[in-house]
Amino acid sequence: MFAFIENRSYRKNMFSSHVFVSYLTTISYFVMALALATVPAENGQSIYWTRWLFYIGSCSILTLDIATTAKKPNSRKAEVIVFTALTMFCGFLASIIITVDRWWFFGLSTAAYIGTLYTLFKPSNEGSYNISSIMWFVLLTWSLFPVVWVLAPTGFGIIAIDIEAILYLALDLVTKIGFGLYISSMH
Amino acid sequence: MFAFIENRSYRKNMFSSHVFVSYLTTISYFVMALALATVPAENGQSIYWTRWLFYIGSCSILTLDIATTAKKPNSRKAEVIVFTALTMFCGFLASIIITVDRWWFFGLSTAAYIGTLYTLFKPSNEGSYNISSIMWFVLLTWSLFPVVWVLAPTGFGIIAIDIEAILYLALDLVTKIGFGLYISSMH
Amino acid sequence: MFAFIENRSYRKNMFSSHVFVSYLTTISYFVMALALATVPAENGQSIYWTRWLFYIGSCSILTLDIATTAKKPNSRKAEVIVFTALTMFCGFLASIIITVDRWWFFGLSTAAYIGTLYTLFKPSNEGSYNISSIMWFVLLTWSLFPVVWVLAPTGFGIIAIDIEAILYLALDLVTKIGFGLYISSMH
Repeated sequence: MFAFIENRSYRKNMFSSHVFVSYLTTISYFVMALALATVPAENGQSIYWTRWLFYIGSCSILTLDIATTAKKPNSRKAEVIVFTALTMFCGFLASIIITVDRWWFFGLSTAAYIGTLYTLFKPSNEGSYNISSIMWFVLLTWSLFPVVWVLAPTGFGIIAIDIEAILYLALDLVTKIGFGLYISSMH
Repeated sequence: MFAFIENRSYRKNMFSSHVFVSYLTTISYFVMALALATVPAENGQSIYWTRWLFYIGSCSILTLDIATTAKKPNSRKAEVIVFTALTMFCGFLASIIITVDRWWFFGLSTAAYIGTLYTLFKPSNEGSYNISSIMWFVLLTWSLFPVVWVLAPTGFGIIAIDIEAILYLALDLVTKIGFGLYISSMH
Repeated sequence: MFAFIENRSYRKNMFSSHVFVSYLTTISYFVMALALATVPAENGQSIYWTRWLFYIGSCSILTLDIATTAKKPNSRKAEVIVFTALTMFCGFLASIIITVDRWWFFGLSTAAYIGTLYTLFKPSNEGSYNISSIMWFVLLTWSLFPVVWVLAPTGFGIIAIDIEAILYLALDLVTKIGFGLYISSMH
């Protein structure tokens, strides 16, 4: 669908971000649907840590898209990509490690996430501008991912694995499909 | 050899694609020669899945080189790299998974491969042009890799592992060394 | 600290290399401090091979920074990044493999390292210039990493694992923190 939309839209000559985000998310969900490469959490339920490796790719493309829309200079775009990739990479380490040490990586991931938000929100003097509605949308929806992580078996295990899966699915639909449609309709 | 050719050619100030393609392929063959990290196929023969991880690097550089030669705009180049990387990544997943589910990833890999070809072949209105002979060469030789995959122990196991190795070697020689020499002689 | 320095310096609009180098090195040391994912060497001591995977990221950013400071053209920058990444990737393979075959990858890593140095030192006709002091600093300090590797349990096992850890730590401090401060003070 995004291949079709981006091919006929004004974004014709831009990088087809949402095609790749959807594609990467599709692979990620196939890997999880087949329950490949999971580890057992302390409460015995499975941890689907592969999700975070795929987020390295898909979320880096998304934040690059946001930085491009906000007309950030190239050095800022590169920083946003690296910060996002590091957020998700530490999220992966925090998920694959089942001992209490995982919280160190949760902390490092949070630091990189703050770096992502800071780089996106910081006004720049060279002609870039803040597109507030998109920024706030990202801040509010993306910040729910670590909340689910903390409540799910990866964190304190307060919510069960099936609730976790539904919440992540809803967040993925909003931040990836919904966001892609919104950005496409903007142009 | 390519380091020497590219250093003295008209491509002096271009990225030395073929040095890196050869280098990556050399590491890949060392890893396979030492039979590191293989998995057993359903018919008991070994699957050398590492090949596909190295293709992520080497084939992305090759398609970037083709897109550059065809004077595609930067957004198209980025798309070609990501499509190629995803083709090989799904090829890796299809190879490391030995259950029947591997065919899902074979399908996803095929989709990304079609995306690569579509992006390369699609004429563009901003001054890029099709260099037909190279395009058709890529289409015809690269498409034989999935054919070998389907016939080898990774797929239906119709051909034995040693025949598979010889066929992949021949294809690697043609698509990497042969192609590199041809491109170098063109300039 | 580097986030603060780079934010207020003349490098304000450049990519914050040293923030990311420090951050990646921090993750790397956390992973090693927790002794995650080590393999036993022939002499029974542990090999911390994860170090080399993180070097792929941090050292690529460092050599990109050096190439940028030396005003190399973009194609040379890309080559330096790929050569550095391949040096560290082969270093990773040489470290995770405990049989005698690891020396093949030590050789391949050395070849890529020579490629990195050659690309950095080679004078270029289009306005780039050599910043000799930085180049010689890199040559002399970076070349001590493979020396430690050869003497440590990863190579001949002449020095013990705790001496190895101290030497790598000293080299990391000099080549990353010290180098970062020096580059920041230059601007």
